[in-house]
Amino acid sequence: MKDYFSSDFKIAILGGGQLGKMMLYETRKFDIQTLVLDPSAEAPCKISCNYFQQGDLMDYDTVLDFGRKADVVTFEIEGVNADALKQLEKEGKKTYPSAATLEKIQNKAIQKKFYVKNAIPTADFEIFDSLQDLKNSVREEKLKIPFVWKSATGGYDGKGVSVIKKIEDLNDLSEGGCIAEEMIPFKNELAVIVARRPSGEIKTYPVVEMEFHPTANQVEYVICPARIEEHVAEKARKLAEKVSAAFDHVGLLAVEMFQTKDDDILINEVAPRPHNSGHYSIEASYTNQFEQHIRAILDLPLGNTDSKVGGIMVNLVGAEGYEGEVEYENIEKIMAMDGVTPHIYGKKLTRPFRKMGHVTIVNKDLVEARKIAEKVKNSIKVISKQK
Amino acid sequence: MKDYFSSDFKIAILGGGQLGKMMLYETRKFDIQTLVLDPSAEAPCKISCNYFQQGDLMDYDTVLDFGRKADVVTFEIEGVNADALKQLEKEGKKTYPSAATLEKIQNKAIQKKFYVKNAIPTADFEIFDSLQDLKNSVREEKLKIPFVWKSATGGYDGKGVSVIKKIEDLNDLSEGGCIAEEMIPFKNELAVIVARRPSGEIKTYPVVEMEFHPTANQVEYVICPARIEEHVAEKARKLAEKVSAAFDHVGLLAVEMFQTKDDDILINEVAPRPHNSGHYSIEASYTNQFEQHIRAILDLPLGNTDSKVGGIMVNLVGAEGYEGEVEYENIEKIMAMDGVTPHIYGKKLTRPFRKMGHVTIVNKDLVEARKIAEKVKNSIKVISKQK
Repeated sequence: MKDYFSSDFKIAILGGGQLGKMMLYETRKFDIQTLVLDPSAEAPCKISCNYFQQGDLMDYDTVLDFGRKADVVTFEIEGVNADALKQLEKEGKKTYPSAATLEKIQNKAIQKKFYVKNAIPTADFEIFDSLQDLKNSVREEKLKIPFVWKSATGGYDGKGVSVIKKIEDLNDLSEGGCIAEEMIPFKNELAVIVARRPSGEIKTYPVVEMEFHPTANQVEYVICPARIEEHVAEKARKLAEKVSAAFDHVGLLAVEMFQTKDDDILINEVAPRPHNSGHYSIEASYTNQFEQHIRAILDLPLGNTDSKVGGIMVNLVGAEGYEGEVEYENIEKIMAMDGVTPHIYGKKLTRPFRKMGHVTIVNKDLVEARKIAEKVKNSIKVISKQK
Repeated sequence: MKDYFSSDFKIAILGGGQLGKMMLYETRKFDIQTLVLDPSAEAPCKISCNYFQQGDLMDYDTVLDFGRKADVVTFEIEGVNADALKQLEKEGKKTYPSAATLEKIQNKAIQKKFYVKNAIPTADFEIFDSLQDLKNSVREEKLKIPFVWKSATGGYDGKGVSVIKKIEDLNDLSEGGCIAEEMIPFKNELAVIVARRPSGEIKTYPVVEMEFHPTANQVEYVICPARIEEHVAEKARKLAEKVSAAFDHVGLLAVEMFQTKDDDILINEVAPRPHNSGHYSIEASYTNQFEQHIRAILDLPLGNTDSKVGGIMVNLVGAEGYEGEVEYENIEKIMAMDGVTPHIYGKKLTRPFRKMGHVTIVNKDLVEARKIAEKVKNSIKVISKQK
């Protein structure tokens, strides 16, 4: 085995946001050296890595030069220059996940075609080279409203996705290649994180469930395990494994899925990295997703993905109407609640809906955890010092 | 409440070893700024803090100047200049634990007298101002062999403690003030970690047990919960609370105890900081000891000290006969075992018995955890690259 621990071995991480920051807890725990590249001088990863470089993740030369400094290259965000990763692979550098996987995932049109080719169930869709083509198709009544519009590239955190319910909704869309996807009347939105090593060892985490606000179309809680029937959970995990194997994926793959009214499972989309839906694992799982990612890309044995206790995650996003230096109102109140852990990402400035942190609630009894999660949600507020 | 999170608030940590390093995982999680002072430029805490300073922890001016840079001062090692802490307190700086507590604990003679004064049961002892005084007492047959010799100051990790079984054992002792302590024929060596806030809120962790090697007089496993009767555990926790309150302690206090053959509990010694006997808590507890220390010194609500699962800790110490650049032989084998997490402290050089890391084994079934812990112990070896 390669000697990773307290050695000269180095992992390059493209992206220095909160996912990278939580990954660094694990590289510190194992004393593995890291280099981080991020465009922001204030990136959450700035401390805790061995070497921080400010730079453009989409710039070919920057990424290439940066990757050459390490033994293994990984990323915590999809928006990185895939051509540079390809070149690094050509030079014999281990790049996990691979450039080929990243390219397929960066473009939603390619991603959808990949599912079809590999007999992976997904919502029906049509691909358009431009927004104008899509508009023409609607005008010619080939494409029927309602549908879900998704930008082929650049979508992130709900950006680049829009539900088109009436003709006027077409006016707000951004230009460029896109897909129109059938609207799935789903029972549940589920996710499964799959870990896979170069040697092919594969493990899935339990299925998690996104609980939506009863009226606003917004995820409020990520709940592990999902409150679904065992045979449905089993189907979801098997399908997630199939997707990971089809990509010949190395590292973590977060697979987002719909559970239809008939209990079919359809793939929504995937992320080739640790994922918001796996944050609960830090407190709840035997092996958290960040440690698992490090194990996977270093071809170390994968850890146990089971949960010690039930876990619920609540995102901390900037409250509407507040912009400026952040303040976490009532954080001491939620810290007094049983099994509650806040994670503060370290962004100095808040703005409406910005992801500033998350809170995990763990409990042996998931029903009790759910009650506490609601109290958490109703107590803490991400505001600014000056309104 | 003071605004600690993503703010300008700063904690100064005296000492930058593994305890500080694990504390920094928690300050990073909460995005609280930290300053670390350590004599070594290679200290495990060097990265992950916001500001690192190389300096002498026993130097009055260094500690005073360093402490002045922060809002709260704490330490991860007892060997720091207590007079500087006193001065910081005079200047209105919050210093937790307090200089007064630290002074009592730094000197074992004072510590023992403190127990007597506060009616805290401890092994009988006699204080000597010098080694010669002790030797005279033995010669005059006032002090009977066997007994336990403890240096009044400077003891750490088993140094400064010696079991005197025959007259020749007196030759190997270091000079200076010391105590002679009655040998306790104990059933078990136990420990309880107590967390206490300035406001007085107090919580104890479950009792842990040190399991010794059947022949060598060496702790092999720290086991949580201790395999003792509930009424004994309850007595140990109550006594630990009493000790913490007697010290008017703020922060963590690790209380090491003997369970005698008659199930009496005697205090052995205390450490006013996170402790080796609490490392299991990172994986096993709802709130780990490092997060709890931070909560306590910031007067935040204390977290749940219960365990999610059974936990066992094995220290990784340098193997005999190896000195030089460290290598963790078979680490990938133990990582393949269920519920096993290695912690590598980040010391580049190993030498016999140096604490290089630890391994936690968690399992819902403590008997199963104990079996896996033995496999871990028999597999991993801390060696050097060149012998």
